[in-house]
Amino acid sequence: MTAAFDDWMKTVQAGSELDLSGFLPAATVVPAKLHAAMRYALLGGGKRVRPLLVYAAGALFDADAGALSRAAAAVEMIHAYSLVHDDMPCMDDDELRRGKPTVHVAYDEATALLVGDALQSQAFMVLAEATALPPARQMAMLRVLAHASGSAGMCGGQAIDLDSVGLSLTLEQLEQMHQLKTGALLRASVVLGALAGKELDAAELQALNDYARAIGLAFQVVDDVLDATADSATLGKTAGKDAADNKPTYVSILGLEPSRALAEKLRLDAHAALAPFGDKALRLRELADLIVQRKA
Amino acid sequence: MTAAFDDWMKTVQAGSELDLSGFLPAATVVPAKLHAAMRYALLGGGKRVRPLLVYAAGALFDADAGALSRAAAAVEMIHAYSLVHDDMPCMDDDELRRGKPTVHVAYDEATALLVGDALQSQAFMVLAEATALPPARQMAMLRVLAHASGSAGMCGGQAIDLDSVGLSLTLEQLEQMHQLKTGALLRASVVLGALAGKELDAAELQALNDYARAIGLAFQVVDDVLDATADSATLGKTAGKDAADNKPTYVSILGLEPSRALAEKLRLDAHAALAPFGDKALRLRELADLIVQRKA
Repeated sequence: MTAAFDDWMKTVQAGSELDLSGFLPAATVVPAKLHAAMRYALLGGGKRVRPLLVYAAGALFDADAGALSRAAAAVEMIHAYSLVHDDMPCMDDDELRRGKPTVHVAYDEATALLVGDALQSQAFMVLAEATALPPARQMAMLRVLAHASGSAGMCGGQAIDLDSVGLSLTLEQLEQMHQLKTGALLRASVVLGALAGKELDAAELQALNDYARAIGLAFQVVDDVLDATADSATLGKTAGKDAADNKPTYVSILGLEPSRALAEKLRLDAHAALAPFGDKALRLRELADLIVQRKA
Repeated sequence: MTAAFDDWMKTVQAGSELDLSGFLPAATVVPAKLHAAMRYALLGGGKRVRPLLVYAAGALFDADAGALSRAAAAVEMIHAYSLVHDDMPCMDDDELRRGKPTVHVAYDEATALLVGDALQSQAFMVLAEATALPPARQMAMLRVLAHASGSAGMCGGQAIDLDSVGLSLTLEQLEQMHQLKTGALLRASVVLGALAGKELDAAELQALNDYARAIGLAFQVVDDVLDATADSATLGKTAGKDAADNKPTYVSILGLEPSRALAEKLRLDAHAALAPFGDKALRLRELADLIVQRKA
């Protein structure tokens, strides 16, 4: 991590926090409890990996700043809603998230359900507001977000995850599940950032897909390694959950050291995919490094 | 109800069923259980009031058929997702819907949660596909749908509903809650159908808002009357739930006969709002009649 990267990251994170706050109704607006809970779920925490990817991909094509801020907020809202629903008792039943009580613990289950539902609507509202982009391109961005969120993306991955508890998945099945569950939204972040800059030709889209596939998998492999090795205080969520829940992970299938080696290989794959973009891909390369080398 | 209206209604309902089926992945597509459950939640039942409103409003301005079918499917997907989540144990805990076991009963709670989430994404995907409409107008339609679905619309109404259990609401508070909970999506249906025909000027939008406000309230007043007077078999859902759950209703605040009189007044208000549109508003007038005079 260079100091310049660290500064850039802090700038994007702080800017995203401000944007997210501005794109949500105030906690005093009726219904106040729902709005307060939405803000609790979305603000004041999180690594903002998806907004970072949006901005890093936007840098490839000098993308419009207003469109980037909306795309970044929209993907982060989808991500945040999925965490709220994922933590509910009928799903993972988690009580700790980003070092704070989860939404259904801090409020109640019904509120958590509505917070997730309303955050999803809000994501599409934020991305559907008029920007400097041609409306046809912005519609394409809305399709990318909807596709990545739904049954062919994140929700589909969650469904496969649910059905895989207690099963012994092959490496291929595990990869397919994670490419939907977390990979689809990471890919959408990269593609949305690039689309905020220009229409993409087939070669550009392929290169971005290859990059996103590599970091998407790397993200999950590293998550599994951290879940098996770090403690709850460092992670800001309950460690060791996957093993306790008897969920298949990279560590349980490959072992710890081979999982680390796979993450490093994927980091290099991500770098290779970015070759066509030259220096403009600096931030995307650094994010691949961050995803693999993070400690939480 | 004239025979012509009855035929028109059956045509729209059958067409919507086909469209909804076509706009969902097949039940054999991975993840198969999620897709089967999404189809279970969405297909083979329901009065399709929202698609009927979309088409009836489209008739005002000879709207594009492709755009209408997408708008109708999108609002119905949002409605269906809200029913699935609403029926869950942490919300209304209902076991019967449209005469069938609710999704969390037929499948499980986690699947019901994901079915609702994925149906919401699917609604935005369906509405974001390119049509014959100018992209800028279609973006406006996406904003209408997102606004009506989120914390300033349907989800917001649900949140107020949750917080009002056991309270004695004024008539005004009850109206505000229902204008968000069910009124927002009914209004969106009307506005989306009209927008599929043309951009709306301020007078047209005001007239449609007045119509939608009247039928939105009438819809709820009649729901409360039916909940207090009809049986579960006729309703296809558990009757008498509101009283059992100690929820404020028009019947509990106004009494039965004054509630019926209010519904009739709202029906006439709806007709009056449509005056500027002349004969083209025939179906919208007939739908107002249907909403007030229905038996289930």
